[in-house]
Amino acid sequence: MSDNHEKYRGIHPIVPTAFREDGSFDPDSQRRLVDYLVKIGVQGVAILGFLGEAHKLTEGERRDVIETVMDQAAGRLKVLVGVRALGTAGAIAQAREARELGADAVFAAPLTIQNDNALYTYYRELAEESGIDVLIHDFPENFTTILSPELIGRLANEVPGIVGIKLEEPPVLVKTSQVLKLAPQLAVLGGLGGVYFLEELQRGAVGIMTGFAYSEVLLEIWQLYTAGEHEAAARVFDHYCPLLRYEFQPKLGLPFRKHVFMKRGIFASDFSRSPGLKLDEQSRAELEATIRRVGLDLDPVVI
Amino acid sequence: MSDNHEKYRGIHPIVPTAFREDGSFDPDSQRRLVDYLVKIGVQGVAILGFLGEAHKLTEGERRDVIETVMDQAAGRLKVLVGVRALGTAGAIAQAREARELGADAVFAAPLTIQNDNALYTYYRELAEESGIDVLIHDFPENFTTILSPELIGRLANEVPGIVGIKLEEPPVLVKTSQVLKLAPQLAVLGGLGGVYFLEELQRGAVGIMTGFAYSEVLLEIWQLYTAGEHEAAARVFDHYCPLLRYEFQPKLGLPFRKHVFMKRGIFASDFSRSPGLKLDEQSRAELEATIRRVGLDLDPVVI
Amino acid sequence: MSDNHEKYRGIHPIVPTAFREDGSFDPDSQRRLVDYLVKIGVQGVAILGFLGEAHKLTEGERRDVIETVMDQAAGRLKVLVGVRALGTAGAIAQAREARELGADAVFAAPLTIQNDNALYTYYRELAEESGIDVLIHDFPENFTTILSPELIGRLANEVPGIVGIKLEEPPVLVKTSQVLKLAPQLAVLGGLGGVYFLEELQRGAVGIMTGFAYSEVLLEIWQLYTAGEHEAAARVFDHYCPLLRYEFQPKLGLPFRKHVFMKRGIFASDFSRSPGLKLDEQSRAELEATIRRVGLDLDPVVI
Amino acid sequence: MSDNHEKYRGIHPIVPTAFREDGSFDPDSQRRLVDYLVKIGVQGVAILGFLGEAHKLTEGERRDVIETVMDQAAGRLKVLVGVRALGTAGAIAQAREARELGADAVFAAPLTIQNDNALYTYYRELAEESGIDVLIHDFPENFTTILSPELIGRLANEVPGIVGIKLEEPPVLVKTSQVLKLAPQLAVLGGLGGVYFLEELQRGAVGIMTGFAYSEVLLEIWQLYTAGEHEAAARVFDHYCPLLRYEFQPKLGLPFRKHVFMKRGIFASDFSRSPGLKLDEQSRAELEATIRRVGLDLDPVVI
Repeated sequence: MSDNHEKYRGIHPIVPTAFREDGSFDPDSQRRLVDYLVKIGVQGVAILGFLGEAHKLTEGERRDVIETVMDQAAGRLKVLVGVRALGTAGAIAQAREARELGADAVFAAPLTIQNDNALYTYYRELAEESGIDVLIHDFPENFTTILSPELIGRLANEVPGIVGIKLEEPPVLVKTSQVLKLAPQLAVLGGLGGVYFLEELQRGAVGIMTGFAYSEVLLEIWQLYTAGEHEAAARVFDHYCPLLRYEFQPKLGLPFRKHVFMKRGIFASDFSRSPGLKLDEQSRAELEATIRRVGLDLDPVVI
Repeated sequence: MSDNHEKYRGIHPIVPTAFREDGSFDPDSQRRLVDYLVKIGVQGVAILGFLGEAHKLTEGERRDVIETVMDQAAGRLKVLVGVRALGTAGAIAQAREARELGADAVFAAPLTIQNDNALYTYYRELAEESGIDVLIHDFPENFTTILSPELIGRLANEVPGIVGIKLEEPPVLVKTSQVLKLAPQLAVLGGLGGVYFLEELQRGAVGIMTGFAYSEVLLEIWQLYTAGEHEAAARVFDHYCPLLRYEFQPKLGLPFRKHVFMKRGIFASDFSRSPGLKLDEQSRAELEATIRRVGLDLDPVVI
Repeated sequence: MSDNHEKYRGIHPIVPTAFREDGSFDPDSQRRLVDYLVKIGVQGVAILGFLGEAHKLTEGERRDVIETVMDQAAGRLKVLVGVRALGTAGAIAQAREARELGADAVFAAPLTIQNDNALYTYYRELAEESGIDVLIHDFPENFTTILSPELIGRLANEVPGIVGIKLEEPPVLVKTSQVLKLAPQLAVLGGLGGVYFLEELQRGAVGIMTGFAYSEVLLEIWQLYTAGEHEAAARVFDHYCPLLRYEFQPKLGLPFRKHVFMKRGIFASDFSRSPGLKLDEQSRAELEATIRRVGLDLDPVVI
Repeated sequence: MSDNHEKYRGIHPIVPTAFREDGSFDPDSQRRLVDYLVKIGVQGVAILGFLGEAHKLTEGERRDVIETVMDQAAGRLKVLVGVRALGTAGAIAQAREARELGADAVFAAPLTIQNDNALYTYYRELAEESGIDVLIHDFPENFTTILSPELIGRLANEVPGIVGIKLEEPPVLVKTSQVLKLAPQLAVLGGLGGVYFLEELQRGAVGIMTGFAYSEVLLEIWQLYTAGEHEAAARVFDHYCPLLRYEFQPKLGLPFRKHVFMKRGIFASDFSRSPGLKLDEQSRAELEATIRRVGLDLDPVVI
């Protein structure tokens, strides 16, 4: 097991940013979410990604979110911070801020430019000039940029600071194997709402970074799988599959997860900033019905 | 229930085109597939879609496929033919050929042009000048064109020949409700590998047109649901969910389905034309493991 | 000078398809256009490209256009035929038809797939299985596919049937030099309405294939340039630059050129098929004013 | 003439950000550029656009550029500041900073989202919450977002702070007329390197905001045109057309303009940040030859 594998194994929920009803950042809710994650025992928390509405925040709000989460985490779980900017300088500034505030790593979106040399330079400069561990965020559905396995392998093998990848280009399992063949030391984290988590583990992923609202389910699957209980892991995965599938719908992930967190008493509000789809009544009813069908609930959690 | 609902209700598997190992069309395998579908009792078969590799066939081969399927179907199930061309004239020619050869309907991809007026004109001319029922194929992942609910509603309400839609723009459930609110008489068929079939039915879809390899599963869900056995339908859907999910991966649907049909003795070969992903060993193993986990098999079918 | 350079040097106007007012193909107008091109002395004519509305024609109409032009050309100038299809089989069928009808070469659009291996295979199979000279049509603005200089060079050096390229990816001059460095034997033809024709020649293009309505202007520039009269060529180019610039506007090229051909008595109608921009009054007036400013006219030509 | 027309008429060069050879911001060069523009007499200067490499700067550098230009301009010409962010909050923060530092207006890129309602909300909130004049930057080639004439008209008519547009979606002249028909009070500024400046004026544009390196040429055309000397304006435009055309090549605009400013003694360096095309020798030679052919020079300017 490589150092990267050891450091980034496990469940790293990517979480929404909590807002009050008036749209301002709600640090109390954000702290409750951290406590909840600590309580269920996940290995890390990933903030300020696409799900975290990072692109809808000002620079000052970014800083607030990081400081709040760092303070509440207090070393009880790793903190990973999303980086996404229109150019290299902005990305480096974000990564440096994350390092200065004590984060463990950043997960960084590519530039919106389809040119392997430019992308290589971008990630290399980002890692070298920020001095913090960098995980590549490979999510073309939202970022439009395609990162080839060859480019990822080259970055992993030539740039010490590139330690992992949140891999979300479908078909994600085939790409997981391609990337690990080229760079076996890379920490591959699954994503895509956990919909392929069982097979991601079978392919060599060391964990997952995704927004699925019930992280305890992913944790159970991972604990069973890494304990060698492969059949039990599959049974648990299959059991929750209807919900994993339903909850992972493009554009609906954010309202679904904020709704669950609000109902469970973690977030005070399900407010999300525009632009973005609001939760319609029928989708809400379907979500709740699916949650109940797999035996979960929406009762307030005790933290 | 509108006439369109009545006519297009049920399961309409969209099927691959069978090739021999040398890459030529294999009518015997295609006929066996038709017989298999007739035997399990689905309502229709959809040929020459994207899954049918229609874009990789010559005009002559298109005709062969239609004639073969029409002859073997012999009125025992409906035949729907895919239409996709670079312009209106080519699409009309394909639709007319389908009508002349006796098909029940066409499902037609949009032009690759993001202009509502041009798209309206395209579909209107296609319907009026071909004289065959037209279902819109709404699948931006492959066709790139976005069809708004408003455009779909306008076409459905103003053009008599527009009878249905194979609706596959995510989030597909929200759009299903939006479209049916504007045009309740339209026959909405689900898609996307059946991954949302339960909720599609709840939202008002009258059936499905998708490539999931085990159509008998979709048929069972639909029969239970339309018989009012909603909970039983959900139980069956949830049971097969791990396979529905796994089998519906971008770029892998075609090799997966040809593999299943070959193993089950329906197709003589799993050959598919380039370009396209080939089935790697690990994906094959994962597919087969998932099939077995949900209690299905890959034994030769008795037709 | 390579054989390809020798064979494809000079001016090869890419021409619209002539329609009657009722939208049907007008062979008489198409023949007049051929005669006009023969009279002014260009080296070839390129039919059934994007400008030729090939994507709006049926297979039968394609054949009619080729036969009409071949018959009228009667060996007096080369005939190049556009190839564009949704897949390889359709493209090969088009190229074979062109060869069987006696055309000199095809210029072929790429598949709409961003994958170098698949594109290489496509062009190789197209050249090998059609048996006719193939020029690559590199025009990402309309076809969306990016062809890298490396891919073009590999095709040119490894596939004997790949003889040239109509190069239209901006910045077109830089790419011209890159491509010719990798494959100096390739016949590079300029495009983009002639807007960069002077520099294309300086960079090593052997001619041009474009739709600029006054081919006699391009011919004059080319004749001066190839006779070593570089300054005179630049003077002529600069003189007509206001028109070259104005006439080459996205979406307006087709209506502009049909308008000029109609006014000059070559086409009986300026009808073009939908979808497509129609000529508005102000654009028409601007075009005509610019034509007159550079000293050209719209009087009927004597053929 | 509307207030907007009056306020934003004339030439507003969009300018590069000056860097030293080590890549850091060079305020001295930036000040010289301002002085040069004041000397030739243009009406405004537009900083921090795409040409200004704004996406490659940190927040601190943005501020430095604005403060430097504001200080040097000292009311002698208008200052317009580019706004572009991943979301609304970031865009508002940039616009507020511009207002606080005394800028006259911002020109704002759209969000990268193809949804008219979301785009309307974005521009409305940007204008209302920043309190500074907003010009829409309509440049789909780089921003990918299409802004329909209807959306632009609605914004112009319903949101007082939307005062103008830098209109660069081809075919740009047709769209200019469409937009002005819907919102005649809007200040339309041309762009696209000045390639269509003559016709933009004829269509109702009140000026231009573009990066063409010789703003004195555009100023001469505009002065003649607005003085009613339409034929003389056309003669000047036609005379410089070879250079306008050559200088406006995708990806080369920035290195071309920095080269000219360096040769003319305005910028100390032609350094630009990656990613971006560097100036190759042949393009440099072509540029200089074209400059000389139209009678301009690269001699140091006296400021």
